[in-house]
Amino acid sequence: MPLTTQILNRLFNVTLPKNSTPKIVIIGAGFGGLFAAKGLRRTDAEVTIIDQQNHHLFQPLLYQVATAGLSPSDIAWPIRNILKKHHNTKVLLDTVTGINTQDSEVLLGDKTVPYDYLIIATGAKHTYFGNNNWEKHAPGLKSIDDATNIRRQILMAFEQAEMCDDENERKRFLTFTVVGAGPTGVELAGTIAELARRTVAEDFRHIDSRSARVLLLEGGPRVLPSFPEKLSRYAKYALNDLGVEVLLEHSVTDCNERGVVVAGEEIPSATILWAAGVQASAAGRWLDCKTDKAGRVIVSPDLSLKEHMNIFVIGDTALVTDSAGVPVPGIAPAAKQQGRYVAKLISNRITGDVDSKAFRYKDYGNLATIGRKSAVIDMPGLRMKGFLAWIIWVLVHIYFLIGVRAPLAVATKWAWQYLTFGRGARLITGKK
Amino acid sequence: MPLTTQILNRLFNVTLPKNSTPKIVIIGAGFGGLFAAKGLRRTDAEVTIIDQQNHHLFQPLLYQVATAGLSPSDIAWPIRNILKKHHNTKVLLDTVTGINTQDSEVLLGDKTVPYDYLIIATGAKHTYFGNNNWEKHAPGLKSIDDATNIRRQILMAFEQAEMCDDENERKRFLTFTVVGAGPTGVELAGTIAELARRTVAEDFRHIDSRSARVLLLEGGPRVLPSFPEKLSRYAKYALNDLGVEVLLEHSVTDCNERGVVVAGEEIPSATILWAAGVQASAAGRWLDCKTDKAGRVIVSPDLSLKEHMNIFVIGDTALVTDSAGVPVPGIAPAAKQQGRYVAKLISNRITGDVDSKAFRYKDYGNLATIGRKSAVIDMPGLRMKGFLAWIIWVLVHIYFLIGVRAPLAVATKWAWQYLTFGRGARLITGKK
Repeated sequence: MPLTTQILNRLFNVTLPKNSTPKIVIIGAGFGGLFAAKGLRRTDAEVTIIDQQNHHLFQPLLYQVATAGLSPSDIAWPIRNILKKHHNTKVLLDTVTGINTQDSEVLLGDKTVPYDYLIIATGAKHTYFGNNNWEKHAPGLKSIDDATNIRRQILMAFEQAEMCDDENERKRFLTFTVVGAGPTGVELAGTIAELARRTVAEDFRHIDSRSARVLLLEGGPRVLPSFPEKLSRYAKYALNDLGVEVLLEHSVTDCNERGVVVAGEEIPSATILWAAGVQASAAGRWLDCKTDKAGRVIVSPDLSLKEHMNIFVIGDTALVTDSAGVPVPGIAPAAKQQGRYVAKLISNRITGDVDSKAFRYKDYGNLATIGRKSAVIDMPGLRMKGFLAWIIWVLVHIYFLIGVRAPLAVATKWAWQYLTFGRGARLITGKK
Repeated sequence: MPLTTQILNRLFNVTLPKNSTPKIVIIGAGFGGLFAAKGLRRTDAEVTIIDQQNHHLFQPLLYQVATAGLSPSDIAWPIRNILKKHHNTKVLLDTVTGINTQDSEVLLGDKTVPYDYLIIATGAKHTYFGNNNWEKHAPGLKSIDDATNIRRQILMAFEQAEMCDDENERKRFLTFTVVGAGPTGVELAGTIAELARRTVAEDFRHIDSRSARVLLLEGGPRVLPSFPEKLSRYAKYALNDLGVEVLLEHSVTDCNERGVVVAGEEIPSATILWAAGVQASAAGRWLDCKTDKAGRVIVSPDLSLKEHMNIFVIGDTALVTDSAGVPVPGIAPAAKQQGRYVAKLISNRITGDVDSKAFRYKDYGNLATIGRKSAVIDMPGLRMKGFLAWIIWVLVHIYFLIGVRAPLAVATKWAWQYLTFGRGARLITGKK
């Protein structure tokens, strides 16, 4: 055992197995987990990455699957395939049920996976602020299955409206409500409006899909609250232009099979999509450690736990603050940076370098798109809106996709859609 | 009412509503139904096409979705979208429950759709020869949902083998059995063998996916029985070359959760795919008319029913014989020709031309592919096998796809796969 490892062990009560390759376990193959695995490729360690799904998902484009613009396989790739050249890395398709920090084991039902270092990157899920019964009426968008289910629901609403003889029912089917005006809510509402106004406009004989009502409900005073106020104002204007009704300072008080209740008034709506609240995954419970209100684990400046210096929590599961004390946003680039940072830190420790610089978030800015022709960009030194911003948005996403898989097919598809207003993946599949 | 219509009415007891546009109802939007609708585009009639799915499916490539080569949206397109320029045509997404020939109405649960002319093109489904309990162990391949379920099952078998500690269980997970050596069975077995031998070969750490056993069971004496014997022999040789074990004259006597029983011997196999028997849809029962053993409706030379000259049955649902008395095969080109023929015949009748020439099947031949590098072609005047046949197979399919949608994206995807041996749609989605 190297001297430094011995010192480490004494200092932090970390027990590494003697004379064996260190075992690194990563839970979650989102941006954080995947880039941690990528960073550990050349490390002399046994790396195991565990995920409930067989695929890594390019989540920033998931709304495109939900609105029938892209196919699942355009934005998701088998984790095994991405990591197939990583000969030190094993991929496990399984569900973590807990962590035994005493014996340094990850629990998968009755199986266990021992670790010397543990990286937890299990992300976040949507929350209904205590109203979990709303979920079945107002699904959220986190996985491929969520997206294909929402796609089916949106397309079926048009079909049901077409078949419906009752005027009020027809209106209910043609009312689409998106709750929450963060980037996902804005993207969903904008794309649904385009779908109704343009893409399916010629497809029906009884209804005029252009008459569909698309509502975007936001409890706060503006859309895209994480952007500068000027860009929020522009986004609201651009949404209106697409035919989206934006209702600010309208909090939802109920979701049921008829529709949504806002400020005491029931709005009949067959499709309600939830893009309002986010709650960190169960990691805090597994570790029995301190979390913030949103369930995010409070970590040290090097993203480890105070009590267990060999356990790291990254991405949406962790509360990380930047040098100014502001929480790092829950976006893909932040998770990637944290994954890379932790991989480097663990590699250093394994080779005996125990000094660790604190994680520093590099802010490359924030983007959101509003339909097919405008976007807002808030980067250090660059604020933009409109069509040129949309072009940059597209280029940035293609650039980031390159990190995972050749994007030629996806780029072709986008271009084709842009030219024809057709949405290629308009399939109603699966059971209702 | 034109004189001819009156004569028609008297002659055949067909009641057309007075002074109104004739109503044509098409059940099923497969190749037969879709090409009937296309043929009726300029006919002065109200056309309604009813399907249980919102999409037309290019079934000849469905095995590619089941084996993770293509995405559902590469081979399926919304019926509404294909027919959006047909201003005389309405698309109904609904399930037919029966036909009231007395009142000339199609029944959709408690709704009815009246018709003056009816075209039934409801296709076929797989049959288990009375052993319907085999279905849950040995799914067949007819719909997009079938294909994504089979895809999940195949990919999960590798995952389960990777996680499995028991030698026998691991073997069971790595045994893939295809029942029936018609074109679909041959295509499935060949592609699964390639998936195991090449595509996922580098993905796993505990198992060697190349050791997977792919079995093709056929009750008859040769593979591809509808092809000339010489091509059957070649196909068997080519399958062996890909690593498929072909067992001829091996009839399945049981399928259960452990595996398949053949000639008294149980072969443990976690994945069993059914490509053996085909049974026509329920149309014969709806119409209460004469069918053959496979449930196909026996039609007149003009594809109508003897008892109801305004009802036509086409495609896999009908037993049609060519001039030599040989049944027309249940393949896409035959269904398309019948759809076009019936559309023309009905158009003629509406404009007063009651003469109808009998349907004549034009045989363009038969193709089947065996993996990525060989195919067999049996065309009038041309028999081919091997790589060049495969190139022709690809070109023919791209040509036929053009009839429905621009195939550029699909062609790109194929080329990419061919060069890289990657299969792009390797996603495990949906519930188990």
